[in-house]
Amino acid sequence: MLSKNQIKFIKRLGQKKYRLAEGYFVVEGVKTINELLQSHFELHQLYTTESFNIDAKTENLISEADLKRISFLKTPNKALAVFNIPKPNQVDCEGLIVALDDVRDPGNLGTIIRLCDWFGIKDLVCSKQTVDCYNPKVLQATMGSISRVNVSYLDLSSFLNKAQLSIFGAFMDGDNVYQAALPDKGILVMGNEANGISKTIEAEINKRIAIPRFGNIQVTESLNVATATAILLSEFRRTQ
Amino acid sequence: MLSKNQIKFIKRLGQKKYRLAEGYFVVEGVKTINELLQSHFELHQLYTTESFNIDAKTENLISEADLKRISFLKTPNKALAVFNIPKPNQVDCEGLIVALDDVRDPGNLGTIIRLCDWFGIKDLVCSKQTVDCYNPKVLQATMGSISRVNVSYLDLSSFLNKAQLSIFGAFMDGDNVYQAALPDKGILVMGNEANGISKTIEAEINKRIAIPRFGNIQVTESLNVATATAILLSEFRRTQ
Repeated sequence: MLSKNQIKFIKRLGQKKYRLAEGYFVVEGVKTINELLQSHFELHQLYTTESFNIDAKTENLISEADLKRISFLKTPNKALAVFNIPKPNQVDCEGLIVALDDVRDPGNLGTIIRLCDWFGIKDLVCSKQTVDCYNPKVLQATMGSISRVNVSYLDLSSFLNKAQLSIFGAFMDGDNVYQAALPDKGILVMGNEANGISKTIEAEINKRIAIPRFGNIQVTESLNVATATAILLSEFRRTQ
Repeated sequence: MLSKNQIKFIKRLGQKKYRLAEGYFVVEGVKTINELLQSHFELHQLYTTESFNIDAKTENLISEADLKRISFLKTPNKALAVFNIPKPNQVDCEGLIVALDDVRDPGNLGTIIRLCDWFGIKDLVCSKQTVDCYNPKVLQATMGSISRVNVSYLDLSSFLNKAQLSIFGAFMDGDNVYQAALPDKGILVMGNEANGISKTIEAEINKRIAIPRFGNIQVTESLNVATATAILLSEFRRTQ
């Protein structure tokens, strides 16, 4: 049985201010929880309908009805875990880094974290206005990749200004990425869904790149930020 | 004022069986509606809080409260339109074609339609189990691209069998796409989110391709089908 306080504690972790205050986040689903258990993430409490065979102090066997009361999902997936939010590591400037300038959509951030994991990007640097990576909707889209990518929330302008690296930015009117020389060390900046890269951040960028449009070039559409990140990361990596 | 019958008619169009029976679909938002108005799509009825200056028989000026009653969105965006579902054109086998084997997530299909538009893919061929492209959630993700991509629902196995084209399929264990020779004419098959390409469809494929993983190769994650499509279409097009 869950106490009222337990339910309240978990539900509050859906909000960023409580996550920051408490230092915990919630993750759901057997597969993702298992991946995090095998990582450096520290488990606080597990609520599950089927035992994970971990120590009884941390594991709470609960009914499906109880799981429904604490879950953030429409269809809860057997288990919900509360983990400690780890302190991010120092950004490692020896490889390719992805930086996000106010990406707001949780699904986009989740997809970008998963892409970083796939393409071996160790560090994702986010502006402070970027959606929180411990938001339940972000975690649902990352599928465990969150344990393999170091996500830091920094003053992006000052970080870029101090970084001794080439800084690439994705713009609609940048140079054709297929013809650009892409190093294996540098920073790739992706902008906000509606406004792209802000003027302040643009000032720090050395090289403006774009994905050419092959369809009707009269149409002023842009690619979604997550699919654009997929294509650009693939371009950076394929040359290695 | 909206009549009960109008509300019922529109709400029902959220379901595939009613869309098929009636031959209409719903689209929302001023920008997307304007794009469709400029395309070959035929408008049936427009419900809007601000006039589009089109003929009074088709345009219904309504209150925000009324718009809320018919909208499929949490935050309705000024207008909702009902268009005729067009008959798809014959598939044009002179270019690159994307084929989907049971893609089920509306957001993924919407993103793939938008990618086809970006990369100048005229034809998207879907298996009959693929989510309906006139589903409101698909249309929300396509952003008007639906008017520039010819989407056909066919018996995919039989279509591939008869097509006189090279057929590429995305597999986890396929050949490195960065080293593959990619023609400007052919078919790229993408599989279902959970199961990939089915055995029946696999039998029709000539060339298995994969996006190499650069991160921890021990981890058995896959890329999301929409981001994988983005990367593969970019690879097909960059060589031109």
